[in-house]
Amino acid sequence: MGRELSYMPAHRSAVQWAAQLAAGVVDATDAIEQTLAAVDACDDPAIFTLTTPERARAAARAASARQQDGCSLGWLDGVPAAWKDLFDLSGLPTTAGSRLLADAQPAAADAAIVTRLEAAGMVSIGRVNMTEFAFSGIGLNPHYGTPVNPHGHRRVPGGSSSGSGVAVARGLVPVSIGTDTSGSVRIPAAFNGIVGYKTSGGRWPMQGAYPLSHTLDTLGVLCLSVLDVVLVDAAARGLAVPDLRRGSVRDLRLIVPTNVVFDECEPAVIQNFETALTRLENAGAYIERRALPALDEILALNTQHGPIVNAEAYALHRDRVEGDAAARMDRRVASRIRLAAATPLTAYIAIMEARRRLVAETAAMLAEGWLVAYPTVAHVAPSIDALEADDDLFVRTNMKTLRNTLLGNFLDWCGISIPNGSDAQGMPTGFLLSGGPGRDDHLLAAALTAEGIIRGAAG
Amino acid sequence: MGRELSYMPAHRSAVQWAAQLAAGVVDATDAIEQTLAAVDACDDPAIFTLTTPERARAAARAASARQQDGCSLGWLDGVPAAWKDLFDLSGLPTTAGSRLLADAQPAAADAAIVTRLEAAGMVSIGRVNMTEFAFSGIGLNPHYGTPVNPHGHRRVPGGSSSGSGVAVARGLVPVSIGTDTSGSVRIPAAFNGIVGYKTSGGRWPMQGAYPLSHTLDTLGVLCLSVLDVVLVDAAARGLAVPDLRRGSVRDLRLIVPTNVVFDECEPAVIQNFETALTRLENAGAYIERRALPALDEILALNTQHGPIVNAEAYALHRDRVEGDAAARMDRRVASRIRLAAATPLTAYIAIMEARRRLVAETAAMLAEGWLVAYPTVAHVAPSIDALEADDDLFVRTNMKTLRNTLLGNFLDWCGISIPNGSDAQGMPTGFLLSGGPGRDDHLLAAALTAEGIIRGAAG
Repeated sequence: MGRELSYMPAHRSAVQWAAQLAAGVVDATDAIEQTLAAVDACDDPAIFTLTTPERARAAARAASARQQDGCSLGWLDGVPAAWKDLFDLSGLPTTAGSRLLADAQPAAADAAIVTRLEAAGMVSIGRVNMTEFAFSGIGLNPHYGTPVNPHGHRRVPGGSSSGSGVAVARGLVPVSIGTDTSGSVRIPAAFNGIVGYKTSGGRWPMQGAYPLSHTLDTLGVLCLSVLDVVLVDAAARGLAVPDLRRGSVRDLRLIVPTNVVFDECEPAVIQNFETALTRLENAGAYIERRALPALDEILALNTQHGPIVNAEAYALHRDRVEGDAAARMDRRVASRIRLAAATPLTAYIAIMEARRRLVAETAAMLAEGWLVAYPTVAHVAPSIDALEADDDLFVRTNMKTLRNTLLGNFLDWCGISIPNGSDAQGMPTGFLLSGGPGRDDHLLAAALTAEGIIRGAAG
Repeated sequence: MGRELSYMPAHRSAVQWAAQLAAGVVDATDAIEQTLAAVDACDDPAIFTLTTPERARAAARAASARQQDGCSLGWLDGVPAAWKDLFDLSGLPTTAGSRLLADAQPAAADAAIVTRLEAAGMVSIGRVNMTEFAFSGIGLNPHYGTPVNPHGHRRVPGGSSSGSGVAVARGLVPVSIGTDTSGSVRIPAAFNGIVGYKTSGGRWPMQGAYPLSHTLDTLGVLCLSVLDVVLVDAAARGLAVPDLRRGSVRDLRLIVPTNVVFDECEPAVIQNFETALTRLENAGAYIERRALPALDEILALNTQHGPIVNAEAYALHRDRVEGDAAARMDRRVASRIRLAAATPLTAYIAIMEARRRLVAETAAMLAEGWLVAYPTVAHVAPSIDALEADDDLFVRTNMKTLRNTLLGNFLDWCGISIPNGSDAQGMPTGFLLSGGPGRDDHLLAAALTAEGIIRGAAG
């Protein structure tokens, strides 16, 4: 990995990359060459599933020439990015973490988000690992290996954007684009001690992203700071420069739910959250603690009707999970998708209609600038070995890992997980700020303001 | 009916009503009294299912007092409206055209659209008939009777907003609010020779409207002119005054599909459409005739997977159509809803996903100001007696009646049907202009411009 490279310390953010390129401290072609070398030399072969060195070198040469000509495309010009294994790259099969797709038809075009970020000058380094078909929050992958959490103790990376979380946390790339259907961006961000932003529906283009649940899938980014999120978000929307301003901490109005999200939380998770909250309150933020009945209702709906993601994943993968191909799938993925075979049409329609109602109700509640704050995950990253050895433990742990974040997908909230310290063993925790559907500008402006206060609370 | 009332001719539009109230030609209390008397005296008892005379009189007194005090609420203050039988009115059961709901729990509050239009001064006269549970485009109702098309020959009113179409066409009220899931506003508008506007999703508030299909249900209005639509639309959105301007005919760009919508069209329907189109072209509109493959795809998807509306109606009414209550339902409604019992979950998910794709594709096609033009219905209103006597004929005729309009619901288009003449027997035809999702302002501005040209084409 890249720690020995003098101008490429771990934890160099996109903004820091950009500043060094702009200052001429480093040339884009050299920087990308070092990045490729660091990826190749990395002691964890499960982080990247694929590198695209020729594509990266060509892009780096173009960025370098623009830099020398004084016509840089902006902050992200020449800065490397890695894509979750489910984004189409023209000419390559899109594997989505599955052996079943290793020989798939090569993609005819790049995913739309790849095109957008490359148009801003970002350099594609390759694709990073994920849970098979994006179907779990833990991050195990028996086919391509499980990227190991860099904070030690052989902990899971979090999923499904597992490689994205570890690649950024280890400083291999400053930016990795993921997807978030039940928490797959925010969970690996929390487990790896980095920032993860999940868009609300429709903000970034979805074309060319291998689907899991058409209703709940959203895109997002894992990186090292909220400012990096803002830069990537602008590029992802096709803007030349970001169009939002930092908010005032006195305008921060946070609802902290008293139900669901603290159930069975580890003490360090609660303590780090409360410390950050106290700092925010002392800085001038307004905090309101109250029950949000919608959160209980979502969990009850999932129990009663079966989760939307299972039904839609079953519709996508029925032939696989019910055929011979199932034997070549992760048994933990295949068996859980297969559960939805018994879901009646009326149950699915009932939960979809309940979702429509709850999205509208909570969107109205958050329309006036309120945000919701709670811990991203109820626990720190659990042990790889324990989960690989015990499928029942895996199922229980996976459900608990996803519980807090899936509420946001059900409600079409945008959300950003910000590191807020770690437990006694050094495993990171995350502070999740969420906003209503389409309120991403407001969320990001608030997060720019809150980030320093939340991170300052690190234990 | 009201034809004998000297100051209440049939076909007095909301704007004409408003002008007479504003000029002091008539007082709101007298006008509403005459309206109630005309409804009571009407020779067709199947148009209104319910009148609310005390509510109407109280509202009229308030409107009259505002008028005398010089503080009118605007164009719609004191103007009567009738609601499709599925809108909640506080304290009354919402029957939705069904005997099964005659003893339902009284509504706790008015429907949101009722509150909005009453806030603009409109006077609720009562509720008007509909197909049971809004499930057909013909307008037969064995429970509350079938309103008769006022253009003679014992023709159907069109559905499902049957009473809305006939009440406005006969001049009983200038405005009636309906719902449109597959054409239920636009079809009765076309069959009765009036204007019918279907919103795109989310434009008007849906609370308190008895559902048929949560995905496809939209609200709309039947009235006598596009200007009336514009006034009602502004009030429905909570605006004090409309915020759109008339477009220029030279900016009209119309796509006329060459596939699907003219199949098996009656000659008079085609002739009236082409006459109007020629006039528009002569006036400076740009016309482009081309195939829209999405239209064929929608019909094929409905055949392959079963229509979305059937699946969602089944989810809502399963207990009724599979239980003893079915015997008390319109057999034509119960049997068709029951068909969806065999729809697999994966088929429904597949058609919903295809819809998402086609909505996005056609929205992009119409984003630059294009509108789509074709005949609202392929035929004029058919015979009541023939359809009541022959269930097979009913099924075939219903499918053909809905075919052109349901394309707009599938694609989340807004649409407005404008009368463009009649056939040799005097039965009206309709010219349907449609716009992309959320492009209602553009559609209405274009319709204001096109209306006179299209109506001038009346044969």
